[in-house]
Amino acid sequence: MRFLINNVLIIPMTDDGPRWFAGSVLVEDGVIAEVFRGDAPQVDKVVDGTGKLLMPGLINTHTHVAMTLMRNMADDVPLMEWLHERVWPFESKLTPQDIYVGARLGIAEMLMGGTTTMVDMYWHEAAVARAVEETGIRAVLCPCFIDDRMGEFETDLAETLSFKNELIQVRVAPHAAYSCSAENLRRGVQLAEKHNVGLHVHVSETRDEQEIVRNRFGKTPVGYLNSLGVFDLPTIAAHCVHVNGEDMEILKAKNVSVAHNPQSNMKLASGAAPVAQMLERGLNVSLGTDGAASNNDLDMWDEMRTAALLGKLTAGDPAALPAWEVLRMATVDGAKAIGAGGKLGRIKAGYAADLILVDTTGPHWQPLHDPVSAAVYSAKSSDVCAVWVAGRQRFIR
Amino acid sequence: MRFLINNVLIIPMTDDGPRWFAGSVLVEDGVIAEVFRGDAPQVDKVVDGTGKLLMPGLINTHTHVAMTLMRNMADDVPLMEWLHERVWPFESKLTPQDIYVGARLGIAEMLMGGTTTMVDMYWHEAAVARAVEETGIRAVLCPCFIDDRMGEFETDLAETLSFKNELIQVRVAPHAAYSCSAENLRRGVQLAEKHNVGLHVHVSETRDEQEIVRNRFGKTPVGYLNSLGVFDLPTIAAHCVHVNGEDMEILKAKNVSVAHNPQSNMKLASGAAPVAQMLERGLNVSLGTDGAASNNDLDMWDEMRTAALLGKLTAGDPAALPAWEVLRMATVDGAKAIGAGGKLGRIKAGYAADLILVDTTGPHWQPLHDPVSAAVYSAKSSDVCAVWVAGRQRFIR
Repeated sequence: MRFLINNVLIIPMTDDGPRWFAGSVLVEDGVIAEVFRGDAPQVDKVVDGTGKLLMPGLINTHTHVAMTLMRNMADDVPLMEWLHERVWPFESKLTPQDIYVGARLGIAEMLMGGTTTMVDMYWHEAAVARAVEETGIRAVLCPCFIDDRMGEFETDLAETLSFKNELIQVRVAPHAAYSCSAENLRRGVQLAEKHNVGLHVHVSETRDEQEIVRNRFGKTPVGYLNSLGVFDLPTIAAHCVHVNGEDMEILKAKNVSVAHNPQSNMKLASGAAPVAQMLERGLNVSLGTDGAASNNDLDMWDEMRTAALLGKLTAGDPAALPAWEVLRMATVDGAKAIGAGGKLGRIKAGYAADLILVDTTGPHWQPLHDPVSAAVYSAKSSDVCAVWVAGRQRFIR
Repeated sequence: MRFLINNVLIIPMTDDGPRWFAGSVLVEDGVIAEVFRGDAPQVDKVVDGTGKLLMPGLINTHTHVAMTLMRNMADDVPLMEWLHERVWPFESKLTPQDIYVGARLGIAEMLMGGTTTMVDMYWHEAAVARAVEETGIRAVLCPCFIDDRMGEFETDLAETLSFKNELIQVRVAPHAAYSCSAENLRRGVQLAEKHNVGLHVHVSETRDEQEIVRNRFGKTPVGYLNSLGVFDLPTIAAHCVHVNGEDMEILKAKNVSVAHNPQSNMKLASGAAPVAQMLERGLNVSLGTDGAASNNDLDMWDEMRTAALLGKLTAGDPAALPAWEVLRMATVDGAKAIGAGGKLGRIKAGYAADLILVDTTGPHWQPLHDPVSAAVYSAKSSDVCAVWVAGRQRFIR
């Protein structure tokens, strides 16, 4: 398969800073073969990019995709009521088939909105794997465990691992420091080592979590997980809302990637992660929507905008988290988070052809003074009009 | 003109709390004639509402619509650079014709996104009035003044007043306590009294503003404006980010409406207004997008979602600013803010037929457990598929 996306405005997300140019992109066998600024070659199949913006597909690095089933079902309630009275009772009844259905719905939403990769953490992840395989989204699937679901988890992990392919990675997901014993956390690390995969874990989402872990183990969640070797393998730490300087030093030293979920953190009143500080310290911070029960959508454009706005408010500085930085978080830094920094998240020869075409003709795009700013502050997921994952078209409007 | 919107899911926004029902709405001569829960009458013109949600049109109570011209032109810079180096130099060159063009663009964006009323504050407001008249949006037009533009303002006010009609109200807009002398503020009040109109003013947007006013006059901006009689007339106070208990008491006692602009306040790192506290004290709080230079769109759905999320974060309580409250702010309370509480902002017999039809078939609406939650947490402006202002269709997708 060889095709050219022609005459399009390109935001390449390369390292030379916020820039864009008119050009064309040649895709061959799922990979970006070449990027042209001037004349492009004659190719049989051409996609006209006039009036459109071409960007790398967005990378959602923390979600529970099947929680779409709980969308708008548990809003505006205190966190403990949300968990104990709404989410957990509902979740306890979910069958793998339910989870498959929820995943199909959530993946449809993501692909239609330009998200081409998701990092998913849930129960019965093999059911999600089936939905991923059928829809063609790129995914890192992370079977999750808590103490009383270890047996089920090990079965799920084995089954999910059987889905591994070019588009599907697997990771082990301990739920959190407070919901898994030290023994089970170590077991998770062992299994990840055995299968040569990384980890994905909730870290310091709430003040309560921080206090519980401190009281039990005399350490912060970051310090505690580190002491158990969780960060010795490639790890995505979701949330990291309540982290201190020492925590950030550990995360940096261990190359842990932080998945920032601003909308979920605001909606559950968990707090605001110190993202500007993390970036200053050189941590890799990517973006996630979290599940639809605490968001309530899987819209990475909304998430980018909120990350920028919340970052400025939290830092007390309108120059904090500029559009360029946030767009990196949703693309380049998301790719780094899943260990694919050298082949995903940019428009560059040799990179995977995970590409999205965005209609810039709506009034909210006018005038187009700065496409990078527009992508973060004005774009909507409904502007996405074509989506390719590894060169295969997965959505067209 | 008589037509029936049939077989639709209705969120009526009446005072009996968050509810919705399947029904039909009969519109006659620009007014809602009747709301039916069961059988509806036979009418020649029927709009099929299957799979759609019918809501009152959204009311944007603080914007500078022509600032669409500066969209994505001045992002991620400190406030003083934003104002002095970007916005003001650009604004100083704007002709009435430029402002007309910017207003046409912004009104197109608003109508397409389900905003049926805007409260606009700007220079050369008569140019905005022309765009309003041509497009058919409902508007409160507020010619603005600062000390060195008083002459121009008085001309503009007279001209804008000549546009007053069923859909167009006018108010006088002193820019702010720090940019207008006491003499000019009193002059503004006099002119508003003379023309029997209300006021619209920026209040306590930033910490700097608060300090400047305290240092100059020994009062908070709220206390100072009150001492000059600004709040003796019906007033919309935009922002009110930095207000104390005494300020809120004054605003409440004087029946001042607060226009909350969460996205602009976050983007410029101005702070977070204590909205939950204001609501507890019984203040009327409505929503605004502010101008597109600090947002960067005129999307009231985004603004609702951000208001809910920021309200929870600020209050440290996920139950603060529930969806229902926020939807009220964008409809019922917006109507109250412009003195139209008894005839705008609800779906109820006798109210103006400012109505929006919203497509609920997208994946981000599924499953539709709670339409009120969905409208605030999951809906997008691009879901709006038909818009009527005073019974006249102004947009259809």
